Amino acid sequence: MKSIPVVLLGCGGVGTQLLQHIVSCRSLHAKQGLVLRVVGVCDSKSLILVSDVFTKDLDDSLLLEICRLKNSSSSLATLTSFGECKVFTNLELKRKVLDIAALLGKSIGLTFVDCTASSETVGVLCRVVELGCCVVLANKKPLTSDMDDYEKLVLHPRHIRHESTVGAGLPVITSINRLLASGDTIARIIGSLSGTLGYVMSEVEDGKPFSEVVKAAKGLGYTEPDPRDDLSGMDVARKALILARLLGWRINMDNIKVESLYPQEMGPNTMSLDDFMASGLPSLDKDIEEKTKVASINGNVLRYVCMIEGSSCLVGIKELPKDSPLGRLRGSDNVVEIYSRCYSELPLVIQGAGAGNDTTAAGVLADILDFQDLFP
Amino acid sequence: MKSIPVVLLGCGGVGTQLLQHIVSCRSLHAKQGLVLRVVGVCDSKSLILVSDVFTKDLDDSLLLEICRLKNSSSSLATLTSFGECKVFTNLELKRKVLDIAALLGKSIGLTFVDCTASSETVGVLCRVVELGCCVVLANKKPLTSDMDDYEKLVLHPRHIRHESTVGAGLPVITSINRLLASGDTIARIIGSLSGTLGYVMSEVEDGKPFSEVVKAAKGLGYTEPDPRDDLSGMDVARKALILARLLGWRINMDNIKVESLYPQEMGPNTMSLDDFMASGLPSLDKDIEEKTKVASINGNVLRYVCMIEGSSCLVGIKELPKDSPLGRLRGSDNVVEIYSRCYSELPLVIQGAGAGNDTTAAGVLADILDFQDLFP
Repeated sequence: MKSIPVVLLGCGGVGTQLLQHIVSCRSLHAKQGLVLRVVGVCDSKSLILVSDVFTKDLDDSLLLEICRLKNSSSSLATLTSFGECKVFTNLELKRKVLDIAALLGKSIGLTFVDCTASSETVGVLCRVVELGCCVVLANKKPLTSDMDDYEKLVLHPRHIRHESTVGAGLPVITSINRLLASGDTIARIIGSLSGTLGYVMSEVEDGKPFSEVVKAAKGLGYTEPDPRDDLSGMDVARKALILARLLGWRINMDNIKVESLYPQEMGPNTMSLDDFMASGLPSLDKDIEEKTKVASINGNVLRYVCMIEGSSCLVGIKELPKDSPLGRLRGSDNVVEIYSRCYSELPLVIQGAGAGNDTTAAGVLADILDFQDLFP
Repeated sequence: MKSIPVVLLGCGGVGTQLLQHIVSCRSLHAKQGLVLRVVGVCDSKSLILVSDVFTKDLDDSLLLEICRLKNSSSSLATLTSFGECKVFTNLELKRKVLDIAALLGKSIGLTFVDCTASSETVGVLCRVVELGCCVVLANKKPLTSDMDDYEKLVLHPRHIRHESTVGAGLPVITSINRLLASGDTIARIIGSLSGTLGYVMSEVEDGKPFSEVVKAAKGLGYTEPDPRDDLSGMDVARKALILARLLGWRINMDNIKVESLYPQEMGPNTMSLDDFMASGLPSLDKDIEEKTKVASINGNVLRYVCMIEGSSCLVGIKELPKDSPLGRLRGSDNVVEIYSRCYSELPLVIQGAGAGNDTTAAGVLADILDFQDLFP
């Protein structure tokens, strides 16, 4: 039986869903001669670790107890029964993580899985890569910090996977990596990578006022609590940066031209959420309505996309042909069009749900299993 | 430098394109610390093999000479200058192939690449898998012979890849494998997997007579020389079988219900190609025209698809919603819709060119590189 030891950083929605997937896939993976051995789980304050990282694992009942605890918003530190496992906190936590990385990385191997939404993990991840460990990320932030960190993270390209950072479980990065491996040259990537903005733009296309659509989306739970977190385009920009760097571009966030859907003076630092929803948002309707009309006259529709082409990486509203995969997009699906030597006239298109804990965690799990040939 | 020794079976269009890709990717792969070492190349009659399979390879000028030769429809046996390499023919050929598989399979590893269109390779491939070798197929036939052979081929699932057997280089099989690895349950796959029939059905939708569309497609070189090879649906059925078996279905070709677009009495055994084109084909127009009208009244369009769902695997004409990824398909792109737990309401969709030597060979090359972690 091949054993893949795993340390999970972050047990919010995606992390706990991953633990549940791991537990429910036990017999499937056993049939393939595989066992995922969860040796440690971290939240922001605590690490619960097995007594012997070479042989033991957190058993399934403990993993499910961790899920229950975290789903009720409790801290790992409140776990009362954890058998032979040990709990480390604060300063001890980071030291202990690096200890086990050093111990296992170059011997039996170890995979770190970052399901946090933190920009704080990048330091530890760069160190564990150096120590021979594998890394899977659902967290975009380590991949979008400065170029030095990025290069440390991808030092051993076969030791890092991050499919779920773009389009959740959609096989976007896998597909781009396959094209690149075969020497295909990618000329252009254009994608609608925010389910929220995809939904908003297709509703606006139907003639609904922008402000009404955003309010409805907020009511349906499609947006972040403050919709400006979506409307700023920064989340899409992070995904665009990840894709551009995958193509070998040595760029940073500030090289990406990002069009926010609200002006700076309506930002969270100068306007309250209530004011934005009540008066800021409706004042934006006319402009978007006019742009929509102009696009329609040209036989086009508006989409909020990332566009990577030539030497530019843009994020914002684009007029696109109604009769293209992106133009035909309705609702909250993500769509990515990839143009390359092999897909020159018509693109390679990948479309589907690009968010959700289940899908995101499934993408993370597939990434972990992708490392199996690296483990003894 | 990590070395992946490769033996190529078949150097028709896809095989020679693969050799050209390998040569043109040399510096790209070297940057990744990889070298693809082509130790042998076979056509149907001859094998050209390096003098020392552990250290030597067919150099790039020889590989390109082989491409030139094969592109001018000459046999490998006519190669006059091949340095220290040796040429083996007929009975010697198969013995020699198995010799090197036994020598390298469990030591430094060896990848066999089947770019033939032959049903004869399956025996050798089953043997080399047993001997520890890896296998990449663009050839559908070994995967669609009887279940015993199939199980021998996939004995070590990590040692076999065959992305290019379905949708050429489109990441269909990769994506399905990722879903399966993460424990997702696939409820339904529906796909338009013949560029030719996709083109025909979308032209018919525009009101053109079926016979005219097929004749035009033949004229444009979109069909096989005898269009009945496409219209029979057998090529789509092979792809459907490959997908169904990937899902774990233990079925054979005769478990697939295949709808041919011409009746049995117009088959190649009873009607000449000229008669079929002149009188057979036009006699089919009325029926398809009527079906198209009925579909249109229902808000649907006709597509020639494979459908894998429940316990049935069907290949034939289906009425599908105009406003679905398959319904919106125009031209010769392939489209696959995958419904699963993660993609339940709206499918995961993969779309793009599903044919062409360049794309197919690129898919094969990506598959070969996917094995890199298995090689020392």
